[in-house]
Amino acid sequence: MSEAREVNGAQKKAPMREVLAEAAFQLFLERGFERTTVDDIVARAGVGRRSFFRYFPSKEDAVFPDHESCLADMTAFLEAASDESDAVDVVCDAACLVLRVYSTNPEFSVQRYKLTREVPGLRTYELSVVRRYERMLAGYLRQRWVEATDGSLRAEVVAASVVAAHNNGLRSWLRSGGEGDAEDAVDRALRLVRRTWGEGGDGAAAPEPQQEDVVVMVATKGAPMWRVIQRVESALRDG
Amino acid sequence: MSEAREVNGAQKKAPMREVLAEAAFQLFLERGFERTTVDDIVARAGVGRRSFFRYFPSKEDAVFPDHESCLADMTAFLEAASDESDAVDVVCDAACLVLRVYSTNPEFSVQRYKLTREVPGLRTYELSVVRRYERMLAGYLRQRWVEATDGSLRAEVVAASVVAAHNNGLRSWLRSGGEGDAEDAVDRALRLVRRTWGEGGDGAAAPEPQQEDVVVMVATKGAPMWRVIQRVESALRDG
Repeated sequence: MSEAREVNGAQKKAPMREVLAEAAFQLFLERGFERTTVDDIVARAGVGRRSFFRYFPSKEDAVFPDHESCLADMTAFLEAASDESDAVDVVCDAACLVLRVYSTNPEFSVQRYKLTREVPGLRTYELSVVRRYERMLAGYLRQRWVEATDGSLRAEVVAASVVAAHNNGLRSWLRSGGEGDAEDAVDRALRLVRRTWGEGGDGAAAPEPQQEDVVVMVATKGAPMWRVIQRVESALRDG
Repeated sequence: MSEAREVNGAQKKAPMREVLAEAAFQLFLERGFERTTVDDIVARAGVGRRSFFRYFPSKEDAVFPDHESCLADMTAFLEAASDESDAVDVVCDAACLVLRVYSTNPEFSVQRYKLTREVPGLRTYELSVVRRYERMLAGYLRQRWVEATDGSLRAEVVAASVVAAHNNGLRSWLRSGGEGDAEDAVDRALRLVRRTWGEGGDGAAAPEPQQEDVVVMVATKGAPMWRVIQRVESALRDG
């Protein structure tokens, strides 16, 4: 850090990590990701080579400098969540923390999106980051649904649904060039997940059978009333 | 290929690709993935270095030698699927093609699972393979649901659900050491997806309102029968 302060005397406020990430990203845009070396980056940032690796394990990490702190925020968010709240709502809200990383800096996010499309190594890196979020959400749901027979399966399926919906909303915003409201796009996408998997949703986790158990019955509009009632009765009986 | 035939005169029946994959895998188990070089692999297989790269772009590819042909099978399967069938059933069935790649060779699959847990590079590679399957399933669903307002979102969320359920079943089978029935484990996991997202499922894609529209009604087991019927009637009326 002392090195950072010396070299960046003129811009004391920007932390070294940010300075490096910015220098790296400018170079990736100018020369391409593959053709930029760590030496190029530290030269541009005006620091020593070891400084880079103090902050980033690899060149790829410098492209996504905010995910580690976002993962930490998500951990804290999930730990603080009340067991009273709908578990699916909690993970949807947690996913929105990721969105904020993108939406606070639209221009950078859109440029990075384009860069990531072009560099297979970055796409792979992004996949592994996304997977870490997904595992974290699944871990939370698994613990909330520990009593359910299919809790672990359901946790993984719902976490995957949340991530897919979040990314669908995020990507449509990125593809639009960062125009419009990112949170709105993601909220709309997550609505399908909340509606389907959330408590009171149609695919909600089934608790152990109780008097208050929920019965779902499906009928076609063309069905005669007697058949509908017959099926309601049998559903209420067999649960 | 002529090179392959010369060198493997004694075992003409094993195609060169298989011989290389087998040699590679044995070495990965013996020495570890990182410590095995392509030179080691070709030496063990008794062929020239270029032969390796003729079949596999990288060392990682040799660990998963069947995925390219499985992706091709899946493409053919989806292209041949009838538009009359439930789109969610089609993608669940397509996912089972992947399972078969694992279940036909339990011992190899279990060993590879353990190897993959230990080598971050292989996990990342696997993620990108899984992502290709997911994109293929999403592409099929998108085209089936092209008329629905939320078709593209739904396609991505359902594809992610299918992959998550498939992998949950597959992993539980792999963790058990390949004991028991893999297809059964995956079938059970996919049931949640079919039930939730399939036609007639609770979270099914909503077509434009029609006379045949499906009505879903939810009641608590404690509710009196008259209230249940009242709600069925109103649901049938208002859809």
